[in-house]
Amino acid sequence: MKYIQSAKNPQIKQWKKLLTKKERELTGTYLIEGFHLVEEALKHDDLVSQVIIREGLDLPQSWNLGQDEVITLSEDAAKALSETETNQGVFAICHVAKTTIDLQKHHSFLLLDGVQDPGNIGTMIRTADAAGIDAVILGNGTVDVYNPKVLRSAQGSHFNIAIEKKDLQEFVMDLKTAGIPIYGTALEGAVEYTTVSPSNRYALIVGNEGNGVTGELLQETDQNLYIPIYGKSESLNVAVATGILLYYMKMGNRTS
Amino acid sequence: MKYIQSAKNPQIKQWKKLLTKKERELTGTYLIEGFHLVEEALKHDDLVSQVIIREGLDLPQSWNLGQDEVITLSEDAAKALSETETNQGVFAICHVAKTTIDLQKHHSFLLLDGVQDPGNIGTMIRTADAAGIDAVILGNGTVDVYNPKVLRSAQGSHFNIAIEKKDLQEFVMDLKTAGIPIYGTALEGAVEYTTVSPSNRYALIVGNEGNGVTGELLQETDQNLYIPIYGKSESLNVAVATGILLYYMKMGNRTS
Repeated sequence: MKYIQSAKNPQIKQWKKLLTKKERELTGTYLIEGFHLVEEALKHDDLVSQVIIREGLDLPQSWNLGQDEVITLSEDAAKALSETETNQGVFAICHVAKTTIDLQKHHSFLLLDGVQDPGNIGTMIRTADAAGIDAVILGNGTVDVYNPKVLRSAQGSHFNIAIEKKDLQEFVMDLKTAGIPIYGTALEGAVEYTTVSPSNRYALIVGNEGNGVTGELLQETDQNLYIPIYGKSESLNVAVATGILLYYMKMGNRTS
Repeated sequence: MKYIQSAKNPQIKQWKKLLTKKERELTGTYLIEGFHLVEEALKHDDLVSQVIIREGLDLPQSWNLGQDEVITLSEDAAKALSETETNQGVFAICHVAKTTIDLQKHHSFLLLDGVQDPGNIGTMIRTADAAGIDAVILGNGTVDVYNPKVLRSAQGSHFNIAIEKKDLQEFVMDLKTAGIPIYGTALEGAVEYTTVSPSNRYALIVGNEGNGVTGELLQETDQNLYIPIYGKSESLNVAVATGILLYYMKMGNRTS
């Protein structure tokens, strides 16, 4: 079993580079941290390349790790690697999954157009997973999905759902060709969301926290939707709005 | 017009104390920061006691401020006061609003039981405001609502909706006496949320991110609800779940 004593060990430095998008793209790997995330990742074959733990930590039997895969860190080294103040002492290096969107097989899509806040993106990936969406598509200008904050707030849903970067304008054309209904979200030129019929086959586009979905995309949709505001707030948080819309679309499945 | 040059001016120190719950409770005031929050606060009478701006900043005419109320800061002083890396140079001191829950006048309530994440609480206050809820009730163990992160994520909804701290066990008894239906949220002993009828008169209890609503409270509700998970994620973010439930309850109002 490999052991790293020094916080200044070059391997620690190398792993910490994975906190940058550039290094993640270069290596096709990313770093996850925390008991829950690592546990979720280990449930998937061929996802985790290395598990890294702080010395003296007891891991659950169920993790069933081969000795070769595990690297142990001193307390100092774990502190150096961690993104958090009080680290849990559990990390892993994962491969970026190679997913392929298949418009014959996949029916439901969440498209993120220029969403900026990592916490929002993570929460939307988690919500899309919960709502049974097939794939999340990230347009240009949306924050990198393997950013540590995105990973943290998605709580492992990265491993459950197809996630791909695409040019949204092009992808919307593909969706049209496949006959999949496309809904945008907008405040003007839109209908109340409850006027569309719940369905399992659709694409929903949500946009930037300040500016919403770009006008060019809104012109290509079948219908643009808004969520009414009954009180005095100006708008909803984009992740909350996404949850309301995705679960509304499941209403056809309701048991009542 | 008062001007503060030094970042070490005792007034700056005093204002920064408002970042602690203790000082907020002692003085009955809190500090807000950022153009949008200050603008929203100024729309309400008797809420803002002082506006504080960085020198050289142009404020909109519509703010219509008397010279006496405004204090100007040097760039250094503004930097010292700010919670953010790149401050907008706009702050205000607000009075904690004195609201009174009236079970004759108010019909819809969101109860937060031990919610811990300030971003979640702020987002839930914003969502409750959007969904036309009358009041948000914070139980013991829920993070203070005038915490800067809560204020930031609520985006001004603090000023629009009644917010009170209460012992939830006692308040639930009051709701029962008033005949207001009470819904808890739980994974066990609960029904799918779509089985209850949308209504404008109800109280919803949501709970701690890890542990949910406490068992004692769940026993006092009329019905406990769950949101089905269609994918592989274990749960939904509590603010997203709240949005789904509050907007479901508005379905009776839908225009379709």
